[in-house]
Amino acid sequence: MNITKQAVIDNYIPEQLSPGNTAEAFAPSNIALCKYWGKRDVELNLPINASLSISLGELGSRTEITESTDGVDQVKLNGELLYCESRFARKVISFINLFRRELDQPVSISTVNNIPTAAGLASSASGFAALTLAINDFYGLGLQPNVLSAFARMGSGSASRSIYQGFVEWHKGNREDGMDSCAERLDLDWPGFRIGLLKVATGEKKVDSRAGMQRTVESATLYQSWPQQAAQDLATIKRAIDDHDLELLGQTAEQNALSMHATMIASWPPLLYWQPESVAAMHRVWELRSLGIPVYLTMDAGPNLKLLFQSEDEISVRDAFPELMDLDIVSPFD
Amino acid sequence: MNITKQAVIDNYIPEQLSPGNTAEAFAPSNIALCKYWGKRDVELNLPINASLSISLGELGSRTEITESTDGVDQVKLNGELLYCESRFARKVISFINLFRRELDQPVSISTVNNIPTAAGLASSASGFAALTLAINDFYGLGLQPNVLSAFARMGSGSASRSIYQGFVEWHKGNREDGMDSCAERLDLDWPGFRIGLLKVATGEKKVDSRAGMQRTVESATLYQSWPQQAAQDLATIKRAIDDHDLELLGQTAEQNALSMHATMIASWPPLLYWQPESVAAMHRVWELRSLGIPVYLTMDAGPNLKLLFQSEDEISVRDAFPELMDLDIVSPFD
Repeated sequence: MNITKQAVIDNYIPEQLSPGNTAEAFAPSNIALCKYWGKRDVELNLPINASLSISLGELGSRTEITESTDGVDQVKLNGELLYCESRFARKVISFINLFRRELDQPVSISTVNNIPTAAGLASSASGFAALTLAINDFYGLGLQPNVLSAFARMGSGSASRSIYQGFVEWHKGNREDGMDSCAERLDLDWPGFRIGLLKVATGEKKVDSRAGMQRTVESATLYQSWPQQAAQDLATIKRAIDDHDLELLGQTAEQNALSMHATMIASWPPLLYWQPESVAAMHRVWELRSLGIPVYLTMDAGPNLKLLFQSEDEISVRDAFPELMDLDIVSPFD
Repeated sequence: MNITKQAVIDNYIPEQLSPGNTAEAFAPSNIALCKYWGKRDVELNLPINASLSISLGELGSRTEITESTDGVDQVKLNGELLYCESRFARKVISFINLFRRELDQPVSISTVNNIPTAAGLASSASGFAALTLAINDFYGLGLQPNVLSAFARMGSGSASRSIYQGFVEWHKGNREDGMDSCAERLDLDWPGFRIGLLKVATGEKKVDSRAGMQRTVESATLYQSWPQQAAQDLATIKRAIDDHDLELLGQTAEQNALSMHATMIASWPPLLYWQPESVAAMHRVWELRSLGIPVYLTMDAGPNLKLLFQSEDEISVRDAFPELMDLDIVSPFD
């Protein structure tokens, strides 16, 4: 029988809570260089493979929790009060419910994402990380970052990585309660490292990541080789970051992302997040590389690209991708 | 040490040849429903997995061999005399050289492909099959179809399947000389089966199939699971053909083709034969299926699609893909 989130969390919070009046926390978005794809435990979001990401500095989510003044829970997103039945509100409320024990105190939760809308980034990672940090503060839990990372992971897998800035590794872990499946900041930086957020298509995804990875694990024979690919890529990427070797990092991160998409494409029904514009942009990246510009791509479960390059090539990248606005180019170590 | 083509062929042809004056043979193109991808022997074109195809009836290659009147070998393609250094001429001459022993008799070889240019089909399968059949006749070799299939395979892997009409299985084989790696016609037909040849992009491929499969085998971790995928798909497809079960056939053939492309996408450097138009057409197929029209896709190492459906749905398919001309819809059992 599987352990529930509630059972895991109950071990870490006091019987009696003494909440404050207000708490606020920020967490960055993150882009995985070695992707998380596939769960070994769907309830706790325990991954089949370890992953590694770069956090996006000031781009992310800010969450404020205050006592609710009108006797019911309230959820705001980007300043707008949501219906409590909305998908986002239900996710937030059921997450905070895991922490309030018997406490009968309604709260108001306000989340603001400052991710440029044009970037096409998911906000669930930064959102659940910021919410977890704010809960820790609001209820005075005093938990360590690794525990907060594991808790954020139960909201959304990749939120475990958004607890930290910089390069972050999310350990796969082995424990049944998942408490060793948490992220840690790597003691590595790379001031010249740049990420270009290239949005190529709009529109809601028909299949979300959660359902997508489940379909892949269940139906793609090729997925069997993914854990091995991810393990070797993670080791290589750490070495490449340590050496500031963009070619090695870029090649490995790009092959990792494309291998993840390959497992989706090999699923049934086929899971192709790419649009025609995605493929056009991919060919543009490869064309640019054939001209000697060291730029690499990574992609998540969606149609958009993220470009990986160094500050010295920013002008060439902007020339080739004039749709990149200033805000779409992120310097994680500034 | 590997066996050479010449050593294999020498075992099957007489010491002394007595060529006729002229010979002519036709061989059909074929579309694999379970793909051939990856070689265990590059010299002999021995495959890592068995494959299964449908031949395209009257669409294919006709090859004529005659004594050369001017003392040198001549190669014609679609009526045009080629330079002997051209890629096509060199391939044809070096193939026929395997069969002529010491015989000092120049020949004229003329190949005509009647595959609609717009279809974007490769002609090497039908070309090498027709050439092998014509060689058998010209030199009076009297070889059986399974031997001819194995010989055609040494020219181009999938040519082994173009020796036959109908549904054809190419056995993987185990022998070192590859003579059990030959195709056989399955005793199954399906009069209502239709194939739509949907060309979506033009232009020479940058990486040919031979180089592409080599790159995949050497660099894609995900390729490790391909042989298992192919083996299970082949068994399922035979059952689906036997039952005239288009849904089972289509699902299996589509997942098989996409899994093959997935192994390419997971290679390094990435091998993406798809163009933006390919992805647009793929989404159109899936959209059509979501409307209840049973149409499935398969794709080879290129940007074009082949649609699999039944005669009863031809009108719906033509409505959705008005670019399909009459000649682009093939009825293999007519």
